[in-house]
Amino acid sequence: MNIMRIPRLYVENAEKHEGRKVVIENGGKVIKFLDKDEEYEGDGKVLYQVIYDDFDNYVLMGTVTKDMIIEYEVGGVRQITYIKKGTKLLEIPAEGYKVYPIVDFGCRILGGHRIAALQSRKGDIRFVNTPVNGIVLFLKEVPAKRENYVFYILPEEEIKFEEE
Amino acid sequence: MNIMRIPRLYVENAEKHEGRKVVIENGGKVIKFLDKDEEYEGDGKVLYQVIYDDFDNYVLMGTVTKDMIIEYEVGGVRQITYIKKGTKLLEIPAEGYKVYPIVDFGCRILGGHRIAALQSRKGDIRFVNTPVNGIVLFLKEVPAKRENYVFYILPEEEIKFEEE
Repeated sequence: MNIMRIPRLYVENAEKHEGRKVVIENGGKVIKFLDKDEEYEGDGKVLYQVIYDDFDNYVLMGTVTKDMIIEYEVGGVRQITYIKKGTKLLEIPAEGYKVYPIVDFGCRILGGHRIAALQSRKGDIRFVNTPVNGIVLFLKEVPAKRENYVFYILPEEEIKFEEE
Repeated sequence: MNIMRIPRLYVENAEKHEGRKVVIENGGKVIKFLDKDEEYEGDGKVLYQVIYDDFDNYVLMGTVTKDMIIEYEVGGVRQITYIKKGTKLLEIPAEGYKVYPIVDFGCRILGGHRIAALQSRKGDIRFVNTPVNGIVLFLKEVPAKRENYVFYILPEEEIKFEEE
């Protein structure tokens, strides 16, 4: 059985890309995965494979800047996530002496759930919780002196900021 | 914004169906969502929409009996999960005086995670954990005297039974 552990990421107008392509036609009603050498001559939107770890290159100030598709395969199941340009994401940081992420790509999380455990130098454990229901789309490990992760979460409700 | 809270389920050769259709061509490389009245004349596999709550009708002894697609839409994101016939699922029951499911459709869970809290008549709380990494595909509420749920989980590793 061919298990794909790392999701594949495809983005619109990618500058550098690895050859695989997906085409979106008719506003997302048709999704076509092309072979490496397959040509495409329709008027659909072509997304090119990029390195999954570069996900955050396509997010600016919490907003997705290009149409993206994430493809994830496990066992007899294929999961395709189509994220439209303009989608707002919530970025939740988790930083500590040691950080243990509890959720990963594809996890649907419910408000109040623990998403990471933080261990202090003294060994105390605290948890980072999500304030919203949503889906984890990406987990970024930020190079830093202390361990540092950012969770990119798609909230199920539109993000609202409370006014005073 | 059109938020779809309940996933749509499509299955191959469904007897009763509600009109929406998806076509799978080329072993899953092309996925086409058809309009209600749209005709299809290719040689792809046609899946028909059925009631999502009937998911367990298409699982027999832990094995998926028909190709299925689950479509879930939230905010600017569309998630399509294609489950091939023959896929093995793990069914985890959760029964108690009161049962509080912690995870739902689409949640990716990691071995040891809590999936439900059980409350006894006396008020004691216990947890049901998942023994494997996987994705929750369906949550069935079983009519019974005590509260009773079954979690249908796609394990990330093939299920193996330990030998004595």
